[in-house]
Amino acid sequence: MNPTLSPPRAKVLAFDVFGTVVDWHSSIAREVQALRPGVDGDAFAQAWRAGYRPAMARVMSGELGWTLIDDLHRLILDSILAQFGLDDLSEADRQHLNKAWHRLGPWPDVLVGLERLKTRYTICTLSNGNIGLLTNMAKRAGLPWDCVLSAEVFRAYKPDPATYLGVARVFDVPPGEVMLVAAHQDDLAAARACGLQTAYIERPAEFGVARPKDVSPDPANTWHAKDFLALADQLGC
Amino acid sequence: MNPTLSPPRAKVLAFDVFGTVVDWHSSIAREVQALRPGVDGDAFAQAWRAGYRPAMARVMSGELGWTLIDDLHRLILDSILAQFGLDDLSEADRQHLNKAWHRLGPWPDVLVGLERLKTRYTICTLSNGNIGLLTNMAKRAGLPWDCVLSAEVFRAYKPDPATYLGVARVFDVPPGEVMLVAAHQDDLAAARACGLQTAYIERPAEFGVARPKDVSPDPANTWHAKDFLALADQLGC
Repeated sequence: MNPTLSPPRAKVLAFDVFGTVVDWHSSIAREVQALRPGVDGDAFAQAWRAGYRPAMARVMSGELGWTLIDDLHRLILDSILAQFGLDDLSEADRQHLNKAWHRLGPWPDVLVGLERLKTRYTICTLSNGNIGLLTNMAKRAGLPWDCVLSAEVFRAYKPDPATYLGVARVFDVPPGEVMLVAAHQDDLAAARACGLQTAYIERPAEFGVARPKDVSPDPANTWHAKDFLALADQLGC
Repeated sequence: MNPTLSPPRAKVLAFDVFGTVVDWHSSIAREVQALRPGVDGDAFAQAWRAGYRPAMARVMSGELGWTLIDDLHRLILDSILAQFGLDDLSEADRQHLNKAWHRLGPWPDVLVGLERLKTRYTICTLSNGNIGLLTNMAKRAGLPWDCVLSAEVFRAYKPDPATYLGVARVFDVPPGEVMLVAAHQDDLAAARACGLQTAYIERPAEFGVARPKDVSPDPANTWHAKDFLALADQLGC
């Protein structure tokens, strides 16, 4: 970056989680195949995740009252089981499978990258996942968050401005001292519109290695990094 | 405990913070004396803390809208400065002093005790302090919370049942699988009324070594421990 254009140093790094920190696609594919070996894990993971935005839209439109992501995941799960020949799954198996989102594994660079970033920044989640899900995930994977922030705290899902501005308010800093770190350009664009700094992280295999994602840079972002280690390098951690 | 009367094993330990985890009295006394050596740090700390409950009562009665503890601390601070000859403090010094609550130091057993308890339980705060305050405190002191929960998440202060039951809801467990750990019998009694397990921690010097607090056991609590190390022993961690 041109140093004359440097923004003020950020104090807080807020991380998107699904896709940015954890690899939901392989984790979900592996979990469903462990439960029923014949199932197409790739297609199952895609189908479950595809229901996510429409389900959140039903909440944001007011059609559903405030609903935790755990409960939205379960609504979507129940709606896709039949097409994968899984409608005979017991209630216990459904509950276990639904909690697979609590057991998602991090990308290989994440643990070391977060530990480095944590030395100079306050690091927190900013995810539509609920607090319990994010906490269970962090405890299992060893994600060293300083704080778990979630749509559940702000009673609004990203990309609602209440979420991005909520992080600044929680830490009593101007929005420009918060940086959203995410693998999704739409999330970053919404954060930028609220005055946050933004860092794009390439996760080309988010939808599976067979379906590489476009990870082209958008010059509107403050930073663009291959992974958390590269971001730590760029931020001098 | 009589094993035939054992409650179900708790999954989540929720900790009161001011007085239970951190020693607010010496920390505040030290901070004000660093700023103005002649001041009676003990009396100043007592006076500041004494304004806390009345200020929260003004919020809970509706007289004040929802207010972060940072802002309540500032209201109280401004109201007591004159009696300590500190009404000439600059705005910058007032802001710095108000953030002393973010810099409170833990009791000597806390760091090792929490690391031990964390191996078998999800450990979180349940404090009337705001999320930013609790996160800054944890980062500075090295408190290894799995998750920072606060009145700010539930929009209600303890002893409102919404706070105790909110912890159970966040982690999707029955109230009986949450244990409140606190140095205050009234906080524990309110948690017990909501069905939580309770652990009392003796902090005889909470109000200063010169003013020892009654730390008698109440048999209504599930556990009674001298400090976090003794609690970890009792819970087999």
